[in-house]
Amino acid sequence: MSEKIRVTIWNEFRHEKHMPEVQKLYPDGMHATIGSYLAKDADIAVTLAALDDPEQGLPDEVLNNTDVLVWWGHCAHHEVRDDIVAKIQKRVYLGRMGLVVLHSGHHSKVFRQVVGTTGNLSWGREQKEIVWSVNPAHPIAAGIPDHFCLESEELYAEPFAVQPDELIFTAWFEDGYIMRNGMVFNRGAGKIFYFQPGHESCPSYHNEYVERIINNGVRYVKPADFGMDIPDGAPCVHPHKVIDEFNN
Amino acid sequence: MSEKIRVTIWNEFRHEKHMPEVQKLYPDGMHATIGSYLAKDADIAVTLAALDDPEQGLPDEVLNNTDVLVWWGHCAHHEVRDDIVAKIQKRVYLGRMGLVVLHSGHHSKVFRQVVGTTGNLSWGREQKEIVWSVNPAHPIAAGIPDHFCLESEELYAEPFAVQPDELIFTAWFEDGYIMRNGMVFNRGAGKIFYFQPGHESCPSYHNEYVERIINNGVRYVKPADFGMDIPDGAPCVHPHKVIDEFNN
Amino acid sequence: MSEKIRVTIWNEFRHEKHMPEVQKLYPDGMHATIGSYLAKDADIAVTLAALDDPEQGLPDEVLNNTDVLVWWGHCAHHEVRDDIVAKIQKRVYLGRMGLVVLHSGHHSKVFRQVVGTTGNLSWGREQKEIVWSVNPAHPIAAGIPDHFCLESEELYAEPFAVQPDELIFTAWFEDGYIMRNGMVFNRGAGKIFYFQPGHESCPSYHNEYVERIINNGVRYVKPADFGMDIPDGAPCVHPHKVIDEFNN
Amino acid sequence: MSEKIRVTIWNEFRHEKHMPEVQKLYPDGMHATIGSYLAKDADIAVTLAALDDPEQGLPDEVLNNTDVLVWWGHCAHHEVRDDIVAKIQKRVYLGRMGLVVLHSGHHSKVFRQVVGTTGNLSWGREQKEIVWSVNPAHPIAAGIPDHFCLESEELYAEPFAVQPDELIFTAWFEDGYIMRNGMVFNRGAGKIFYFQPGHESCPSYHNEYVERIINNGVRYVKPADFGMDIPDGAPCVHPHKVIDEFNN
Repeated sequence: MSEKIRVTIWNEFRHEKHMPEVQKLYPDGMHATIGSYLAKDADIAVTLAALDDPEQGLPDEVLNNTDVLVWWGHCAHHEVRDDIVAKIQKRVYLGRMGLVVLHSGHHSKVFRQVVGTTGNLSWGREQKEIVWSVNPAHPIAAGIPDHFCLESEELYAEPFAVQPDELIFTAWFEDGYIMRNGMVFNRGAGKIFYFQPGHESCPSYHNEYVERIINNGVRYVKPADFGMDIPDGAPCVHPHKVIDEFNN
Repeated sequence: MSEKIRVTIWNEFRHEKHMPEVQKLYPDGMHATIGSYLAKDADIAVTLAALDDPEQGLPDEVLNNTDVLVWWGHCAHHEVRDDIVAKIQKRVYLGRMGLVVLHSGHHSKVFRQVVGTTGNLSWGREQKEIVWSVNPAHPIAAGIPDHFCLESEELYAEPFAVQPDELIFTAWFEDGYIMRNGMVFNRGAGKIFYFQPGHESCPSYHNEYVERIINNGVRYVKPADFGMDIPDGAPCVHPHKVIDEFNN
Repeated sequence: MSEKIRVTIWNEFRHEKHMPEVQKLYPDGMHATIGSYLAKDADIAVTLAALDDPEQGLPDEVLNNTDVLVWWGHCAHHEVRDDIVAKIQKRVYLGRMGLVVLHSGHHSKVFRQVVGTTGNLSWGREQKEIVWSVNPAHPIAAGIPDHFCLESEELYAEPFAVQPDELIFTAWFEDGYIMRNGMVFNRGAGKIFYFQPGHESCPSYHNEYVERIINNGVRYVKPADFGMDIPDGAPCVHPHKVIDEFNN
Repeated sequence: MSEKIRVTIWNEFRHEKHMPEVQKLYPDGMHATIGSYLAKDADIAVTLAALDDPEQGLPDEVLNNTDVLVWWGHCAHHEVRDDIVAKIQKRVYLGRMGLVVLHSGHHSKVFRQVVGTTGNLSWGREQKEIVWSVNPAHPIAAGIPDHFCLESEELYAEPFAVQPDELIFTAWFEDGYIMRNGMVFNRGAGKIFYFQPGHESCPSYHNEYVERIINNGVRYVKPADFGMDIPDGAPCVHPHKVIDEFNN
C-alpha cells in the first residue's frame, strides 16, 4: 500500500445530471461531494470515477492503484460490466482493496457478489431517520455520538438479507421501521463496509457525522499490513514439512 | 418443508469410475456411501445426483424439492453449469435450502459463489489427521468426542480464505499444519456447512464420526421455520406505516 | 438431560404482591403466567421459584435438576445471594444449564456475572414498541413475523453495553429510540438468551409472540448433547500423546 | 487517552525469583522483558507492576492512568485482591482500559471475571509448538507470517472454554493437540486479547513474532475514541424524546 490511502469513489452519476433537485444538492455529483470531504485529510488521495467514463471509470491502471473503492449505484446496476465486478471481487478477496458500499449499492452487482447476498431489503417514502450507534468502541464509530438525526432520508427497512460480522449502527424511522444500517463484512482477506444513508434527493452527504462515518469506514477497510502472501490459488505445499523447520 | 428432510447428495462421481483404489473404497460412489448412512434415519429422504446425469443431476424438479444439498466435487468444477449454480445460490439465500460442502468442494463454483470467497487454501500429501472439537455445545458437535483420528487424509492447511460465522472443528496434521475444518456460514436466510475430510482415496466417509458430523450438519442447515416471507426482491412498503397497526 | 426439558422460572415476585395494577395483570406472578404458557408443551416441565422462597427458591436439588433457568428480577437484585449466583454461573459455563434473562434482569447479578457486562442501558417512560426480527432464520425467530407491536412497554434504549454473539430482534420505540432486544451469548459450554419485553405493569407476557419467543429461547439454550466431558478444572493430559492413538 | 499509550505490565513475578532457569531467561522478570520490547516504540509508555509491590502493584493512581493492562499470573491467582479485580473489570467494561492476558493468565481471576469463563483448558509437557495465523487481515496479525515455530512451549490444548469474538491464531503441538491461542473478546465497551505462549521456563518472550503480536495486541485493545459517554449506570432518559431534536 502507498503512504497515502488511495480512495476511488465510483458513482453511477446520472441522477445528478437529469434531476434538478439532485443537481442542486450535488452539482458535481455525490462522489465529488464525498471526495471533497475525504480529501481534506492529508493522508487520503481521492480519484473520482463514473459509470459513463471510459472503461466505466475503472480501467486496470485505476483499479490496480486503488486501496479503497467507494461505491454508489442505483438505477444502472445492470449496466456495470461483469468483468469489472469480477476484478473488484478478486482484489477484495485477496486483501488488496477494501470496499465501502453506500445506500442503494445494497442491490449492486458488486455488493451482491462480493458479500454473497441478494441484497434484498424493504424501502419506502422519505422520512425522518435517527442513526443509533450500537458498538461505540468500534473504529467506525469514532467521534460519533450515541445518535444523530437525518431530517429526511429514504426508508430502508428490515428484513435486510444479511448477517454482518460487525454491527455498528442501526436506524430508527418515523413510520415505525428499523434497519441495521452500518455494518462490516469479512470476505477472504478483505473487508466491506456498508452504510445506508445517501438517497440522491436527500442532503445526507453534507451531514458531518455521515462524512465522518465514511471517512472512518475508508480507514477501517483499507488493506491490512500482511505478513504473508495471500495466495491467488490453492498452492501445494508438498514436500515441505513445517516440522522440519525446527532444525533450521 | 416436507415432514422428511429431503437431502440431495451431489457427487462429481468420476474418480470412482476410473480409479481402482477409489472404486474399492466407494463402489457406488461417495454419494451413495454418505446416502446410505443418512438414510438410516427415518426422517431423512435421500436422492443421489451426479455430474454426468441429465441436467447435471439437478433438474428443477429435483432442486425445488431439496431441503439440503450436499456437494462433493473436485476435478470438474469448471464443467458445472453457471445457471445451476445461480439457482442453488438463490435457493440458499432465500432460505429454501441448506448447503453442505465437503472436502475439495472448497474450490467449487457453488462454494465460492454462495459463501463469497476464493476458496483458496494450501494442500499436500495424505497423512495422519486429528479432528478437534472447539465448540462442543454446537449442534454439529453433538455426540462427537473432543477429538478423533483419521489414519490418512489429504493435507488441507491454513491460510484458508474465510472467516466463518461459527467454528466447530479444527484439524491437526502430522507434518505440522492445522486447518479450521468444520464451520458454518450464514448467507441471506440460509446456512452453509463446510467440512474438510473426504479425499477420494481415503476411507473417511466410512468413519462413524465423519458420518455423524455430516448428519448433524444436514439437520443444522435445513431450512428454518420462517414466520415471515423472505422476499425475492426489494419490496416497496409505502404507503403502509407500521405505526398505524397499533390502531388495529 | 432428562427427556423433558426441566425449566425453572425464577421471579423476584414482589411487585405482584404490592402493586394492584401488576397483580391484576399477573395475579399469581409473572413466572406463573410464563410457566402456564410453557407447560402447554408436553415436553416441558415447569418449576416456579421466587426470591422469598426458602433458599431463595433455588436449593441445590432444584438447581441441579434444572435444564433451563428463566430469570426475572428488578428491585431486589442486590438481595440475591452471591453463592447462588456463583452456582448458576458454574452450571451455565459447564453446559449443564441454559439461561433466559428477561427485561430488567439485564441489571441482575446473574446476567452481569454470567455474560460479563455492566448490563447498562438507558430507560424511560412506557410507550409503543415494535419488535423487528433481524435474523429470521434463527431458531428463536421461528414462527415470528417480521415485526409485531406491543401497545405499551417500558423504554429500554441503546447504548446497551453488550456485543452479542447472535442478534435476533431489535426494537423501535415511539420516542425515537431503538434497542437490540433479543440476543444470544455463548459463554463456556453454555448459552444465554436475553429478551427485553416484560415490564411488570405491561401485559407483554400475555402476548402470543412474546410467549413463542420465550418458548423458542428455552429450547435454544437447553444443554447440548455433548460427546465429551466438559472439564470442571484444567486437566493435565500428560503423559498421553494423542498421536499414539493411531496405533490403537 | 494520553498521547502515548500508557501500558502497565503486571506480573506475578515469583518464578523469576525462585527458579534459577527462569531467572536466567528473565533476570528482571518477564514483565521487564516484554516492557523493554514495547518501550522501543516512542508512542508507548511502560509501567511495571508486580504482585508483591504495595497495593499489589495497582494502586488507583496507576490503574486510573493505564490505557492497556498486560497480565501474567500463574500460581498465585488466588492471592489477587477481589477489589482490584473488580476495579479492572469496571475499567475495561467502561472502555477506559484494554486488557492483554498472557499464557497461564487464562485461569486468573481477572480473565475469568472480565471475559466470563471458567478459563478451563487442558495442558501438558513442554514441546514444539507451531503458531498459525488464521486471520491474516486482522491488525494483531500485522507483520506475522502464516506460521512460526516455538522450539519449546508448555502444551495448552482444547477444549478451551471460550467462544471468542475474533480468532487470529491457532497452535499446533507436537503430541497431536491444537489450541485456538490468539483471540479477542468484546466486553462492554472494552476489548480483551488473550495469547497463549509464555511459559516461565520457555524463551517465548524473546521471540520476535511473540513480541510483535503483544505489541499489536496492545494497540488493538487500547481505548476507543468514543464520541459518546459510556454510562456507569443505567440512566433514565425521560422526559427527553429524541424525536423532538428534529425541531432544534
